[in-house]
Amino acid sequence: MHIISDTLQPANPVVLSAIQQEDAAPIRQIVRSALAKGIHGIDINCGPLPKHPERRMSFLVETIQAETRLPLFLDTTNPRAIEAGLKVCRNRVVINGISLEPSKLEGILPLAVAHEVDVVGFLLTPEGQVPTSLDERIGIAVQLFDVSTKAGLAAERLIIDPIVAPLAWANGLQMNRDLLQILKLLPEVLDYPIRTIAGLSNLTAGIRNIEKKTALECAFLSMMAQAGLNEVLMNVERQATTAVAAACRQLLHETVFA
Amino acid sequence: MHIISDTLQPANPVVLSAIQQEDAAPIRQIVRSALAKGIHGIDINCGPLPKHPERRMSFLVETIQAETRLPLFLDTTNPRAIEAGLKVCRNRVVINGISLEPSKLEGILPLAVAHEVDVVGFLLTPEGQVPTSLDERIGIAVQLFDVSTKAGLAAERLIIDPIVAPLAWANGLQMNRDLLQILKLLPEVLDYPIRTIAGLSNLTAGIRNIEKKTALECAFLSMMAQAGLNEVLMNVERQATTAVAAACRQLLHETVFA
Repeated sequence: MHIISDTLQPANPVVLSAIQQEDAAPIRQIVRSALAKGIHGIDINCGPLPKHPERRMSFLVETIQAETRLPLFLDTTNPRAIEAGLKVCRNRVVINGISLEPSKLEGILPLAVAHEVDVVGFLLTPEGQVPTSLDERIGIAVQLFDVSTKAGLAAERLIIDPIVAPLAWANGLQMNRDLLQILKLLPEVLDYPIRTIAGLSNLTAGIRNIEKKTALECAFLSMMAQAGLNEVLMNVERQATTAVAAACRQLLHETVFA
Repeated sequence: MHIISDTLQPANPVVLSAIQQEDAAPIRQIVRSALAKGIHGIDINCGPLPKHPERRMSFLVETIQAETRLPLFLDTTNPRAIEAGLKVCRNRVVINGISLEPSKLEGILPLAVAHEVDVVGFLLTPEGQVPTSLDERIGIAVQLFDVSTKAGLAAERLIIDPIVAPLAWANGLQMNRDLLQILKLLPEVLDYPIRTIAGLSNLTAGIRNIEKKTALECAFLSMMAQAGLNEVLMNVERQATTAVAAACRQLLHETVFA
């Protein structure tokens, strides 16, 4: 399981302002701090970038790839920003992401095909809603796999995100139990060793008790890892959770206990 | 998954001395502290009790059942102590435990059968060694199930402990990966929904870095919970791990997220 840092987010006013002013220093600081945590990739969540999408994404990619050779996740719904990122990025790129929504299939999937890069596929309905039943989610995974490969994407380029539900949702608990099943079922259902990714932060959205939040994150992350999750997008500044992610890697993937 | 406190141990000099002097106060204090952690049972690990086994086990059981109605695990290799505990205990009892070792099958299994109580069955060879291969461990589980039920133990009384290996062992990492498989395989192999238990403390024996120790415990505990573990024996005074155990219960077993 690879650990992808999600600490660059426009919900953080420091990040938002750094993007708007194209100020590299705060971005660099956040990236350097994440790099010190033993990560394997960086998610560049920059929002939809309504103004100057090309210039701002180029600024972000250039700033970050000056610090690291790790894969960069271009996390925006704006195809112009993604295309600009693809042009300047020398690191490995992952487009984050597509879904069955027509705007994503028409505007973003072709970029992944043309540039031969990895792309995250969210299990959302064509209307952009999170499906609730296990069957519906599996059905959407099959459709997304079919439509992507038929559009010319190599199967190994697709990384499916089944979407972690906030536990605060009425059906969040059941949806997350289903997610563990989905991770185990997908390779069989798709008849392909599909890669998977999940964003951990959603899980405890709205829970304020930090001890409880951390315990739920640590437990569910370990369960997802055991169910075969390939990449986790997470707040690597939360020390206990990051230590558990490293422990999961050691327990499940390493050949020797060091 | 039920949480069983393992904090009463003769490796703790306070406990050892309290047993030897039949001094209830320190025992009561340790038990009360564990009870405050939301546990479901208490392991009375008193060692082999070479002197006055009957009187000392009776003292322990009486002292503890004055504090709680929770199940008590009689954790000793001394059949005389176990029998004494069975006589005075009004709470639910679990004998901890038996194995294919002749002394256990002859000296302890009959007590579980006669008193109709639960008993932990360790996956050890008849020589008392921890088997290393997955196949050997599964084979021992089948033998232990057969020999116990043939001796008259009801199948629902047996709780199998596949034994967590210290990661510091040369093959500890692989043995613990196998353990996750064993938890998943046992109900199918035995064609019975067998209950399982595991002692978590072994995992990190010899690891001194407390952050690493905690992260490994939290990760492996969550993985065992997801693999179907029914009872975990653990140090409930380690706050982060106990919070993760509670999170596992919530994520896997509760009907509503509170």
